[in-house]
Amino acid sequence: MPVSKMESKIKVSEVLIDALEYMKKFRDQVFVIKLGGEVMVDDGVLDAVAQDIILLNYVNIKPVIIHGGGNEISKAMERLGKKAHFVKGLRVTDEETMDIVQMVLIGKVNSKIVASINKNGGNAVGLSGKSAKLFLSEKRKSDVDLGFVGDIKEVNSDLVSVLLENNYIPVVSPVGIAEDGTSYNINADTAAAKLAVSLGASKFMILTSVDGVWDKNKNVIEKMNSKDAEKLIDSGVAKEGMIPKLRACIQAVGQGVPAAHIIRGDRHRLLEEIFTAKGTGTMIKAK
Amino acid sequence: MPVSKMESKIKVSEVLIDALEYMKKFRDQVFVIKLGGEVMVDDGVLDAVAQDIILLNYVNIKPVIIHGGGNEISKAMERLGKKAHFVKGLRVTDEETMDIVQMVLIGKVNSKIVASINKNGGNAVGLSGKSAKLFLSEKRKSDVDLGFVGDIKEVNSDLVSVLLENNYIPVVSPVGIAEDGTSYNINADTAAAKLAVSLGASKFMILTSVDGVWDKNKNVIEKMNSKDAEKLIDSGVAKEGMIPKLRACIQAVGQGVPAAHIIRGDRHRLLEEIFTAKGTGTMIKAK
Amino acid sequence: MPVSKMESKIKVSEVLIDALEYMKKFRDQVFVIKLGGEVMVDDGVLDAVAQDIILLNYVNIKPVIIHGGGNEISKAMERLGKKAHFVKGLRVTDEETMDIVQMVLIGKVNSKIVASINKNGGNAVGLSGKSAKLFLSEKRKSDVDLGFVGDIKEVNSDLVSVLLENNYIPVVSPVGIAEDGTSYNINADTAAAKLAVSLGASKFMILTSVDGVWDKNKNVIEKMNSKDAEKLIDSGVAKEGMIPKLRACIQAVGQGVPAAHIIRGDRHRLLEEIFTAKGTGTMIKAK
Amino acid sequence: MPVSKMESKIKVSEVLIDALEYMKKFRDQVFVIKLGGEVMVDDGVLDAVAQDIILLNYVNIKPVIIHGGGNEISKAMERLGKKAHFVKGLRVTDEETMDIVQMVLIGKVNSKIVASINKNGGNAVGLSGKSAKLFLSEKRKSDVDLGFVGDIKEVNSDLVSVLLENNYIPVVSPVGIAEDGTSYNINADTAAAKLAVSLGASKFMILTSVDGVWDKNKNVIEKMNSKDAEKLIDSGVAKEGMIPKLRACIQAVGQGVPAAHIIRGDRHRLLEEIFTAKGTGTMIKAK
Amino acid sequence: MPVSKMESKIKVSEVLIDALEYMKKFRDQVFVIKLGGEVMVDDGVLDAVAQDIILLNYVNIKPVIIHGGGNEISKAMERLGKKAHFVKGLRVTDEETMDIVQMVLIGKVNSKIVASINKNGGNAVGLSGKSAKLFLSEKRKSDVDLGFVGDIKEVNSDLVSVLLENNYIPVVSPVGIAEDGTSYNINADTAAAKLAVSLGASKFMILTSVDGVWDKNKNVIEKMNSKDAEKLIDSGVAKEGMIPKLRACIQAVGQGVPAAHIIRGDRHRLLEEIFTAKGTGTMIKAK
Amino acid sequence: MPVSKMESKIKVSEVLIDALEYMKKFRDQVFVIKLGGEVMVDDGVLDAVAQDIILLNYVNIKPVIIHGGGNEISKAMERLGKKAHFVKGLRVTDEETMDIVQMVLIGKVNSKIVASINKNGGNAVGLSGKSAKLFLSEKRKSDVDLGFVGDIKEVNSDLVSVLLENNYIPVVSPVGIAEDGTSYNINADTAAAKLAVSLGASKFMILTSVDGVWDKNKNVIEKMNSKDAEKLIDSGVAKEGMIPKLRACIQAVGQGVPAAHIIRGDRHRLLEEIFTAKGTGTMIKAK
Repeated sequence: MPVSKMESKIKVSEVLIDALEYMKKFRDQVFVIKLGGEVMVDDGVLDAVAQDIILLNYVNIKPVIIHGGGNEISKAMERLGKKAHFVKGLRVTDEETMDIVQMVLIGKVNSKIVASINKNGGNAVGLSGKSAKLFLSEKRKSDVDLGFVGDIKEVNSDLVSVLLENNYIPVVSPVGIAEDGTSYNINADTAAAKLAVSLGASKFMILTSVDGVWDKNKNVIEKMNSKDAEKLIDSGVAKEGMIPKLRACIQAVGQGVPAAHIIRGDRHRLLEEIFTAKGTGTMIKAK
Repeated sequence: MPVSKMESKIKVSEVLIDALEYMKKFRDQVFVIKLGGEVMVDDGVLDAVAQDIILLNYVNIKPVIIHGGGNEISKAMERLGKKAHFVKGLRVTDEETMDIVQMVLIGKVNSKIVASINKNGGNAVGLSGKSAKLFLSEKRKSDVDLGFVGDIKEVNSDLVSVLLENNYIPVVSPVGIAEDGTSYNINADTAAAKLAVSLGASKFMILTSVDGVWDKNKNVIEKMNSKDAEKLIDSGVAKEGMIPKLRACIQAVGQGVPAAHIIRGDRHRLLEEIFTAKGTGTMIKAK
Repeated sequence: MPVSKMESKIKVSEVLIDALEYMKKFRDQVFVIKLGGEVMVDDGVLDAVAQDIILLNYVNIKPVIIHGGGNEISKAMERLGKKAHFVKGLRVTDEETMDIVQMVLIGKVNSKIVASINKNGGNAVGLSGKSAKLFLSEKRKSDVDLGFVGDIKEVNSDLVSVLLENNYIPVVSPVGIAEDGTSYNINADTAAAKLAVSLGASKFMILTSVDGVWDKNKNVIEKMNSKDAEKLIDSGVAKEGMIPKLRACIQAVGQGVPAAHIIRGDRHRLLEEIFTAKGTGTMIKAK
Repeated sequence: MPVSKMESKIKVSEVLIDALEYMKKFRDQVFVIKLGGEVMVDDGVLDAVAQDIILLNYVNIKPVIIHGGGNEISKAMERLGKKAHFVKGLRVTDEETMDIVQMVLIGKVNSKIVASINKNGGNAVGLSGKSAKLFLSEKRKSDVDLGFVGDIKEVNSDLVSVLLENNYIPVVSPVGIAEDGTSYNINADTAAAKLAVSLGASKFMILTSVDGVWDKNKNVIEKMNSKDAEKLIDSGVAKEGMIPKLRACIQAVGQGVPAAHIIRGDRHRLLEEIFTAKGTGTMIKAK
Repeated sequence: MPVSKMESKIKVSEVLIDALEYMKKFRDQVFVIKLGGEVMVDDGVLDAVAQDIILLNYVNIKPVIIHGGGNEISKAMERLGKKAHFVKGLRVTDEETMDIVQMVLIGKVNSKIVASINKNGGNAVGLSGKSAKLFLSEKRKSDVDLGFVGDIKEVNSDLVSVLLENNYIPVVSPVGIAEDGTSYNINADTAAAKLAVSLGASKFMILTSVDGVWDKNKNVIEKMNSKDAEKLIDSGVAKEGMIPKLRACIQAVGQGVPAAHIIRGDRHRLLEEIFTAKGTGTMIKAK
Repeated sequence: MPVSKMESKIKVSEVLIDALEYMKKFRDQVFVIKLGGEVMVDDGVLDAVAQDIILLNYVNIKPVIIHGGGNEISKAMERLGKKAHFVKGLRVTDEETMDIVQMVLIGKVNSKIVASINKNGGNAVGLSGKSAKLFLSEKRKSDVDLGFVGDIKEVNSDLVSVLLENNYIPVVSPVGIAEDGTSYNINADTAAAKLAVSLGASKFMILTSVDGVWDKNKNVIEKMNSKDAEKLIDSGVAKEGMIPKLRACIQAVGQGVPAAHIIRGDRHRLLEEIFTAKGTGTMIKAK
């Protein structure tokens, strides 16, 4: 056997044996993985992420997917000639907007993720947070009427558990339902964190468009605790979209999820984080 | 006790005791119920139908809902300034149209039914036919390219069975998925019939905008068999939208579903059909 | 459709939809229902009560029946020319009397109820309190020897639970058994209350020969609490047979059964109480 | 250790080790045991038989008890001054007689057996053939009206199986129920044989007042087959009460029960038959 | 029937009925039984003990066997010309010795017990304490290096429980395994006691070469408590091999095992102890 | 990110994603893996093989290990000064030799494999073929008395199935047991093949000291069918130890195992065969 070939063979088994350590560590645990809108832009990336998710399922990790989709909503509204209306920086969601939110999130984004996982050999099931009152919500209290913007009152995750027990991969849209049946637009990062807590997840992972959380010098922070994360927000180093992500991570680890991660939603970064010692992106622990 | 009051009391128990006969007859059986677009137009009607469905669930009948939504799709296309294109009477479904089909069916119509059932105290779970490859489909063979119009190759109803065993009420959108992940627009009546066959349902019920199937004198036919139904189509008495409905019923009873029904999608007609001797609409049996 | 017919149809579904609220409220809960001897006098009434019980079973309420039978015992003794003997108002139960008690309660009254439920399509199982030591009893302590009059020491309701899990309707005779195998005559109302407590029942219902509990003006009291009930006894407004019934209700609600009811054992009064807002008879709550 | 003591000790273990062979052979098998009225005359004998039954239960044999009670019925009728009426040798059972039959069988004889087993530490459950339509019956066809004399149409032994799975000892009274709820007096030996067949029993044992089946010289026949049994009846050697017992055995082994036994209902004869090589009474095999 | 024969029959049932009391008492309980090397010397004795163990299994007692084997190890070492080396009375176990220990205990002694049980109709499964880390061990701390002498750190008895639930008879060799895979020689009496505690056994029985524990006059003590046992050791009345046996018993009862027994490993002594009022050997209770 | 690093990361995920295809293919399937004596010579190799086996277990493949050990037996006999005795090329196994066989296989070789798997984080359980009569055997019929050489009569693999269901890794020694308890030396390759058939395994893999099966030019044959294998034996190309290995493979695939493999028992060759397209060694299919 030529040396080069032997080497490559040794590498195959090396990778697998290295990965075995993490399979042992995470067996039968729930990982809640939030796919940011960025992941869905490139079909190749989505397929790669789908394969990663299926792999988790095959090594007895229980992945639960939840997605965002702000960009897609904006595009759809534009396409319909509908203008966004903001009050004190918050988007006012009127009935027609709420209809668009649901159509885009449940009918388009979720549907696309389910298709990608299933074509790659997984068994995904798309769900909105309205099914079985998964995200029981209420209208957000606010000085001005924001319309159909809601907050989660209660997570009823039994349905998700039933699906996991039967080896399905749940894919959840962040839409809430009130007792009276009203649909509410809810924040995807918060919903993901609350779902992770409710399911007793051992990891809460946010896939997004940056390599991780930056320090003031724009270097990715590999590991930090809740307090560090809070300081990053307070000091203004963390900005814009990173703030709700950090807050969701702080919430998750503060309520018992052992680790939260913010990583780039790129090809196989999930595997890199989960199955290698080096990892990728930023990990946030309780303390 | 005044006579009038006593009478009314006797009636309450009379109704319940009469209904008991049907509870005995249908216990633990699956009913596949197709809600035509008409049911969804009036919120009051939808809520009434939702209550009927929940009642079935409470007396141990296992309702599975599948819906259409052609009108809603047309409205959405119009709103987007998109023109329908037909070849030999068949709508050509290009990629953008297919996106709209999914958004409307899964994100709007299904979502609305789920909300109505859940606000009335049921435990509905919305699903598309893409989840767990429920409706595994393929492109329709045709002389001209119809785009994303598909036919069901295989019904994988395990997911629906898992939900029924856990006492959820599945609400299914008629969207198919191919092995390669492509989404297909599939006929809702056919999908409903195939789902009924796959689940071993004991009733297949179509709720629509007429009182039942008409004979040539425009009187509703109370009961007929498959052959009668075929004759109605062949003779031209059954027309337009009624033809695919009759074909779906013929298919269902031909493959073992004991009875198919076409009834008006009005307040509590489901209960009237299921829990009274008189019934409503048209019943079709195998022979 | 003629107006009158339409109205009647609306009523059918109205009754069912109204009943749905109560099905939701009581799903999977145990109701212990004590049938007084009066219920068994008229076969038509017994059959109507049997239908009510079966209906409960069909909407996932778990009825457990326990019966009395003093009148039947008296008749049998008379027929045998046996004289009742009383000491301080309490019937002395000698061995032959105890034999008659068992034969009448288990062999006749219980047997008749089982037959009525089973002929109406239910799945009743007749049991005495001796089976699997359901009512483990001991001789009543008393100044004078009352013979085979006993008190329940312990309720072993596992057998009843096994039957309920398998969807049978248990019908229990109030006969106790001591550790040494001796049979004891036990009070049916007390046995019923203790059984309700042991099973964690959510309702304890006594069907008897009056419309409910009377206030001093002989009007039926619709609702009261334990204290009110005690006052009725202490003040002498409640009399004779009503006293042990009230005491059993007080005992049941005092030990965690949410509601006790005293209602007339007439056609379909059970359904009227359980499935209508108005209800019937008297309800007793803890406070 | 003195020789005598050592011997006695060796005997204890010898008996147990000998019995082990039979425990191995019969583990998890159902034995249907019919107790003739004779067994119930002497409380000491009944207690001894009860202990035997409990022992079977403890070594994982599943005993199902069914009893007769003709003598007790006759005594009760006499006590009530009611005369038996015969047409062509068959007792005419009028309604009052049927009431007495039920009271005596279910309320007295069954009740006594249950008490004996339970006081000896078993977990017996008394049942009539009316419960869960165990013995679904119909009126016997006959030239003259025999009243409430019935034949078993169908054995519904699910209830008995549920009790066995939960480790209870069922004690069954031979009373049948028709679809319309009518109670019928049915032959205990036949009922026992049919129950054995329905439960897939591996032994059908009749405990009676003689040592076994006699040959023409009045010696007990240790073993015979169905044909031998038929010859005994045809030739007139078997007489009176032995005839229906033999017919029941022939029926049982003819429908798949491996062995039927007729043995004296005396202290611990059951154990002697089951746990010793020598056995007791008469064994009947299919051929 | 001649008197002598009848008597013998009465004795069979007497023995069984007497044994029934103990079957009731011990049903579904775990007995951990340690077989000393002496039991294995005589094949007849081993077979008799095997039958006793099988009998326990047939009457729903769950026997778990653990064995010693010092003599066999010594013989094997001798056969190999290997000299034992002692430091302060403790055997130094070098690697070759540890190999011999494992070969003899697992490959010979355990194997022989399994064969004996299985040939007598039981379902024995041989296990070492290394399987599924049953006896997770560590090197014994000591002034001088004793080599592969270990102490149990943790008992992982799930494997044994799985086997018991599936009705197998586990036979365990006292060999421990460290986290790093090293095998350790562990004390059999201690291992047995720890296993009994871990399994929640209701009896811990040591079968050995003497009739029981002697008092200072060399009479067997029938019953004593932990304190008595400690005094026997402290006062020097208990000597040599009896000391670790007593310490194991003290440990077992001190941690919740209701009774420990030291009895002669002779034919059917197990049955004598378990199924007779008189018993045999010495019983030790907590206090 | 430097190119080199990115590449290495891509490789990690590439390997895992490639492996995913095989995880999908083999999920929940049983692989019977025979470890030749050669695997056990080098501790590093054994540990590497143990890791491979654990990895299989973690990706839901159910590995069952069975081992040989001829060399170790020979060494032990030599150490004991015991001469091998052959008749017509077959080793005569006297009682002492059989003792050595058991001690070496069960007490040493099996024990070492169990230790290696468990120290690497698996949950191995060592078993001999005597446990629960896994390999029920009989003396080999032969002209001359070969002593304790046996053939398998029946494989009772329930015990192995119970262990697999509970996620243990069974490690089996090829020792048989006769009905009378006699232990027999059985051929490991044959035992492995029969076990694979009995368990419905989807792969039967022999790990040995060569790279695979050679053709006449000493090149490894990558793939062949049963007939090819037979020709290799008949033509004399396959020699010595390869012959029984080929026969075992022929037997396994002839009785329904889809594929048999002969591969070198080297570091991670198992993974190379199972998780790469290229594979290693020789694969034998039915035709």
